[in-house]
Amino acid sequence: MEAHKISVTKVMTKKPKPANDQLGFGRHFTDHMFIMDYHIEKGWFDPRIVPYQALTLDPAAMIFHYGQTVFEGLKAYYTDSNEIQLFRPEENIKRLNRSSARMCIPEIDPELALTAIKQLVAVDKEWVPTIEGTSLYIRPFIVATEPYLGVAPAKQYQFIIILSPVGAYYSEGINPVKIAVENQYIRAIKGGTGEAKTAGNYAGSLIAQEKVTNHGFAQVLWLDGYEQKYIEEVGSMNVFFKINGEVVTPALSGSILPGITRMSVIELLKQWGVPVRETKLSLTDLQAAYQQGTLEEAFGSGTAAVISPIGELHYQSHALVLNNNQTGPLAKKLYDTLTGIQYGKLEDAFNWTVSLT
Amino acid sequence: MEAHKISVTKVMTKKPKPANDQLGFGRHFTDHMFIMDYHIEKGWFDPRIVPYQALTLDPAAMIFHYGQTVFEGLKAYYTDSNEIQLFRPEENIKRLNRSSARMCIPEIDPELALTAIKQLVAVDKEWVPTIEGTSLYIRPFIVATEPYLGVAPAKQYQFIIILSPVGAYYSEGINPVKIAVENQYIRAIKGGTGEAKTAGNYAGSLIAQEKVTNHGFAQVLWLDGYEQKYIEEVGSMNVFFKINGEVVTPALSGSILPGITRMSVIELLKQWGVPVRETKLSLTDLQAAYQQGTLEEAFGSGTAAVISPIGELHYQSHALVLNNNQTGPLAKKLYDTLTGIQYGKLEDAFNWTVSLT
Repeated sequence: MEAHKISVTKVMTKKPKPANDQLGFGRHFTDHMFIMDYHIEKGWFDPRIVPYQALTLDPAAMIFHYGQTVFEGLKAYYTDSNEIQLFRPEENIKRLNRSSARMCIPEIDPELALTAIKQLVAVDKEWVPTIEGTSLYIRPFIVATEPYLGVAPAKQYQFIIILSPVGAYYSEGINPVKIAVENQYIRAIKGGTGEAKTAGNYAGSLIAQEKVTNHGFAQVLWLDGYEQKYIEEVGSMNVFFKINGEVVTPALSGSILPGITRMSVIELLKQWGVPVRETKLSLTDLQAAYQQGTLEEAFGSGTAAVISPIGELHYQSHALVLNNNQTGPLAKKLYDTLTGIQYGKLEDAFNWTVSLT
Repeated sequence: MEAHKISVTKVMTKKPKPANDQLGFGRHFTDHMFIMDYHIEKGWFDPRIVPYQALTLDPAAMIFHYGQTVFEGLKAYYTDSNEIQLFRPEENIKRLNRSSARMCIPEIDPELALTAIKQLVAVDKEWVPTIEGTSLYIRPFIVATEPYLGVAPAKQYQFIIILSPVGAYYSEGINPVKIAVENQYIRAIKGGTGEAKTAGNYAGSLIAQEKVTNHGFAQVLWLDGYEQKYIEEVGSMNVFFKINGEVVTPALSGSILPGITRMSVIELLKQWGVPVRETKLSLTDLQAAYQQGTLEEAFGSGTAAVISPIGELHYQSHALVLNNNQTGPLAKKLYDTLTGIQYGKLEDAFNWTVSLT
């Protein structure tokens, strides 16, 4: 199948678009969506852009019972030169296929996936919001559709892409958050599905997120599943700490999602000559650095917030106040650089952006 | 809401029923299904029996992205006295609500759930197969239906029950299987979702099941996620070992599914005066018992197979042949007793069965 043969059926009547200040996250969807089917005897077939519409699935479809699914999240940005560009979409597609391998889902031709994303965004380009900090969130996902109650990899799937215009994450500028260490629930363990972007990881994390939210915190700090001693992720972001001039982040040990923003942060730091180390980092080490006054900054990284500075870290009876609860200079520089590249304000020295045209 | 107010819309034309020897597992579905909706502002509402039909869900429905879902599995049996009965359905409903609590899903009135199951089976009673060993598999499940891409518990759900006539698990009598220890992938860990009956556990297990199937084994023996040393489950069954006259099974440590067949096996053994112990059981202990000649029997327990004797257990270079690869007397007695009660051939001293009428 040639990658460019995507059929397009456009809507007769376009939906009204939400106002810029009403965007929020993941609540509004554009006029069109991409769908492609898979059958074990045919492979992937019939890639198509169609009007945004409900999925019609047998109640026995395996997605509802055994959760065989993977997803991705990336964004299209409206640039100062009135163009639309994507940020490292090839990395999302690579990760989608790695997630699929773990979940026994057939892989997708990366070239076709990229074409599908670009073409869909182009069809709905009027939905890319133009106000600073806004973007068009792109959600590719694959679900097992075969109607069968046996526990086995499905023989039928759908690959779907939907688009959602999203508001600025920091409407009043980048702001530090309070996070709390989770010591009852576990997000993932090596040998499990933690490094795949798959539904079950998120379903399992909801209860811990609810718990900390009820206590006034923004996010959960996840510890390792073995000893509940080593730091893994923050909410659904990767996490970085600047200690005595060096930036440390949990190494990809098998239970941590390999973030694309994480990867970009590491590459930027290396370019800037800032020492950066992927390692096993314990809460005890962090507490020691804090007491010595060498814990300079902490921040999460992810597609939604880009960089999310951590102002306070709570665990047991400890409350670590970081950088006087202000956004640190390194977090700020990373945020400005990444968003600068994403919105086409800064030179893209790494060739990270992909133009729609 | 009164539990009995379930509206019923019957099909105009009934589907043809599959032949008894064509049943298999989970491939055929009956004429009707049960649906009930939930909205955070209304609670559960509109319980209804309707013709079996596709679900129509927004592609942004949270089930497709974050896997917030729980399910159950139980069976209706056609008895020798031409009645239809369920096996311990209250236990399935209790477990459904426990799973829901872990997954941040609103609980369901147990009385309504039981009424829904009984009424749906009654409407489709012609679908309960009557040949020995066959049954009507009942699959209640809840899915998050709210169209939203934020990672948070959904505000809308559907509770659905579908029915599938299933064939005899052992068409040629109960037969031992070969299983292999999994030492790369992990099913669950305490603090995760292992004790909830939720999709992600099954999605994560597919790759290990594929691996052992490719090597000629029927099932995976799962070890604990911490040390990969202690025995947890077999495939999607609980597991029992008879060692020197005593039956041991992994204790419900937080990562093991609390099986209803498991519970029933333990209760039967106690009634029979067979020593039974829930404990931490290492592979090393098992190997030692095998070498001493005291490992007498091994078997899995679950709704599908009831009792599944283990004939061979493989790990690393070891192959443990159990009871000369024959079904052991205790496994046979448990199988005969449980199925005897389920099919109304034996007295139900425990009051485990629930008649449809």
